[in-house]
Amino acid sequence: MAIQRQDILAAAQRILTAHGLADLTMRRLAAELDVQASAIYWHIPHKQALLAEVADDLLARVPEPSSRRRWDRQLHQLGTDLRTTLLAQRDGAEVVAASRASSLDTSHLGKRVVEIVESGGHTHAHAVASRDALLHFVIGYTFDEQTHAVMAEHGAAPARFGDADAAYTAALDIVIAGIRA
Amino acid sequence: MAIQRQDILAAAQRILTAHGLADLTMRRLAAELDVQASAIYWHIPHKQALLAEVADDLLARVPEPSSRRRWDRQLHQLGTDLRTTLLAQRDGAEVVAASRASSLDTSHLGKRVVEIVESGGHTHAHAVASRDALLHFVIGYTFDEQTHAVMAEHGAAPARFGDADAAYTAALDIVIAGIRA
Repeated sequence: MAIQRQDILAAAQRILTAHGLADLTMRRLAAELDVQASAIYWHIPHKQALLAEVADDLLARVPEPSSRRRWDRQLHQLGTDLRTTLLAQRDGAEVVAASRASSLDTSHLGKRVVEIVESGGHTHAHAVASRDALLHFVIGYTFDEQTHAVMAEHGAAPARFGDADAAYTAALDIVIAGIRA
Repeated sequence: MAIQRQDILAAAQRILTAHGLADLTMRRLAAELDVQASAIYWHIPHKQALLAEVADDLLARVPEPSSRRRWDRQLHQLGTDLRTTLLAQRDGAEVVAASRASSLDTSHLGKRVVEIVESGGHTHAHAVASRDALLHFVIGYTFDEQTHAVMAEHGAAPARFGDADAAYTAALDIVIAGIRA
């Protein structure tokens, strides 16, 4: 039976969830699916393309903000939901960071941010800079939280105290205030 | 001859510059210094502590912004110089991201950001949130640029066009406008 693209994606997600990003290799994926590596390469040419698929699928889980709310509240909702989505997937922030760095991802998330900022009456140039500010902030912040959580679990980092959600929201509010300004 | 802490740091920097973060292991470090691993563990107990030392040393190269300038111009200078410093060191952003996530770093950079924002008449709570917004943005942005550059060099990512410095400055200006707001 020929292997399908969605089988590969599902296997990649199983490996990511059970073992983490370091174990997500094309070789491991072939073993998980019990096929030759060539059967995978026919669908997905290399590791960067695989990460882009996994990241796109993860980002597609971020809910679309309600267009009935003010544009800056939509951005706030998106910034909050993006963090929640990334934290819900093991190594989620790192997968998305690596995928975006490859410029191979096809997620519409960046485009949505640009559209929302423009709907507030801002120029396209401001909307693009806002997208860069917001997404690098959220992904960078979440990468830090997720990496710290793994280290702390293994006793390799001291625990952090305080309200993590409130601290995130305060920093997110600052970025959004800058987009509004 | 007993090995000194500064010899270990210098060797770690040589490995990082020549081979990258993936090759910076305690074992590799012992081989580079031609000593038993135990001689290193006596100074530096584990990989996280090593990364924290390397990151602290890197962050110490960020110039102190001139206190004769307005507080928000100082932040802008710091945000610009931090990116330049990270980009100048192979895998610099990843080293700093990993080190900050371990909460083992002792760099004063975060404290300086808090002090500068407070000097603008803002509350401590706002200054702390500003630190989180600014540093996660800068490190996340630079991580993306640096990761992309390595991938593009190996033909694993399409080239990016446009003025990278201008794009960064536009996004940095948004974060700082949010701190000012």
